[in-house]
Amino acid sequence: MVREVVVTDEFGQSRTLFIPAERALTIYVDKRELVTLMTLGAHPEWLVLGYLRNQRLVETLDEIESITVDWDVGAAAVKTRNGISDIEKRTEKRVVTTGCGQGSLFGDVLDALDGIQLPAAHVTQTQLEEITDTIRLQDSIYKKAGSVHGCALFSTQDTHAEKLIFVEDVGRHNAIDTIAGWMWLQENKVQTQEVVFYTTGRLTSEMVMKSAQMGIPIVVSRSGMTEMGLALAQQLNLCAIGRATNKRFLCFSAPERVQWQAMVVAA
Amino acid sequence: MVREVVVTDEFGQSRTLFIPAERALTIYVDKRELVTLMTLGAHPEWLVLGYLRNQRLVETLDEIESITVDWDVGAAAVKTRNGISDIEKRTEKRVVTTGCGQGSLFGDVLDALDGIQLPAAHVTQTQLEEITDTIRLQDSIYKKAGSVHGCALFSTQDTHAEKLIFVEDVGRHNAIDTIAGWMWLQENKVQTQEVVFYTTGRLTSEMVMKSAQMGIPIVVSRSGMTEMGLALAQQLNLCAIGRATNKRFLCFSAPERVQWQAMVVAA
Repeated sequence: MVREVVVTDEFGQSRTLFIPAERALTIYVDKRELVTLMTLGAHPEWLVLGYLRNQRLVETLDEIESITVDWDVGAAAVKTRNGISDIEKRTEKRVVTTGCGQGSLFGDVLDALDGIQLPAAHVTQTQLEEITDTIRLQDSIYKKAGSVHGCALFSTQDTHAEKLIFVEDVGRHNAIDTIAGWMWLQENKVQTQEVVFYTTGRLTSEMVMKSAQMGIPIVVSRSGMTEMGLALAQQLNLCAIGRATNKRFLCFSAPERVQWQAMVVAA
Repeated sequence: MVREVVVTDEFGQSRTLFIPAERALTIYVDKRELVTLMTLGAHPEWLVLGYLRNQRLVETLDEIESITVDWDVGAAAVKTRNGISDIEKRTEKRVVTTGCGQGSLFGDVLDALDGIQLPAAHVTQTQLEEITDTIRLQDSIYKKAGSVHGCALFSTQDTHAEKLIFVEDVGRHNAIDTIAGWMWLQENKVQTQEVVFYTTGRLTSEMVMKSAQMGIPIVVSRSGMTEMGLALAQQLNLCAIGRATNKRFLCFSAPERVQWQAMVVAA
């Protein structure tokens, strides 16, 4: 997932370094081409599953008979049991809500937000620190090659935050979709009221929407937040925490979900 | 383009800060809905123009009669002189090549790369330092609110690099498209052999493709590069420079376009 390349530095000297090596993966649903994703490809089946889920093209796991990935041709063939009704129409409207400014969340996803009721949940300040510590110490492609985004899911069921899964990809959307696919396969094991989602990327409207669709009530980011992301988070009563590094963080919405510890402030 | 919000910090104290305020802008071409972009909206007409150009939906400026932006309804109405032939078919295929992993560059853009011949051009090390210095000193939304990407175009016609335009947006794709639109309107004034494109974002395949389509032979980024971006840059003989901050940089491709100065290295 990384490749070593030769570059020339500011002294005109050759140096070698690693860069992330993404591949094109075209998703076919019942032999119909849907989209081509650029991905590091660590977990292509989860990515495809999560993409279909987050685009709300598939409502239940039962609808999918199989997902077959063939890297030789860069294709993921999805076979559904009964087809996806109105797929032409449902993928026609491009609502582009991502932080990259030109994403690909299809039209009726926005409409579906009204039906979302996030579970009651909270996170303690100690758990937040454990989450950022875990990410800081995580062995990663980012540390080796840079230029990728990371997402993770943490369980806060016990007193301590426990990492369930960590995924990196060239794009944060692929990373969150991969986690969505993984979560779907765990359905009964991961209780959304007891998980916190972490992303290195900004909390834009699309990230908030995807988290909400996955039923995750608390989202933590190393980066900041945009106004539309905030407006959605407030509407959903989703707790959005940004600028989380070391022991620092800023809670942008639903602060009642955070349990602040009594802190001794150095004089 | 920024909004002041109240957040809660790690001490449980309220603080105010600024976040970028993006708006939805839906592009209609001859009354047909094409796409919705999330944008800071500084130069919506340039953005729409650049988007149409970079998606290769429009080949010449003459094809466009007018672009009318109405923020009250978040719409940009594009009127063409003779319509866009095959627009349904040409916007059907989603090739998703962006750094966010799920962008929106339509299908036949990739095919068009074969015809691109970038002009002979070079950049001096002094000009590179002037470019990063200018960006560092630039008054920006990023400094005020964070969470946005910046792009700029520099002329290297004279000995010194001169800033022509600087654009920020929630997504780097909108920022580069806005510059593309601006460039198109200057057609005869901006000679592509004498310009360098700067972006705060990563050099992914989509950024390289867009630069090449705009005829820009040299691209500079504060961030790194992905393998596919590099493969395209090498194929196009486009000079891609990454990790450019202060006096440091790494040249990933076409180093013959860089004129290194004799440097005195501290012992």
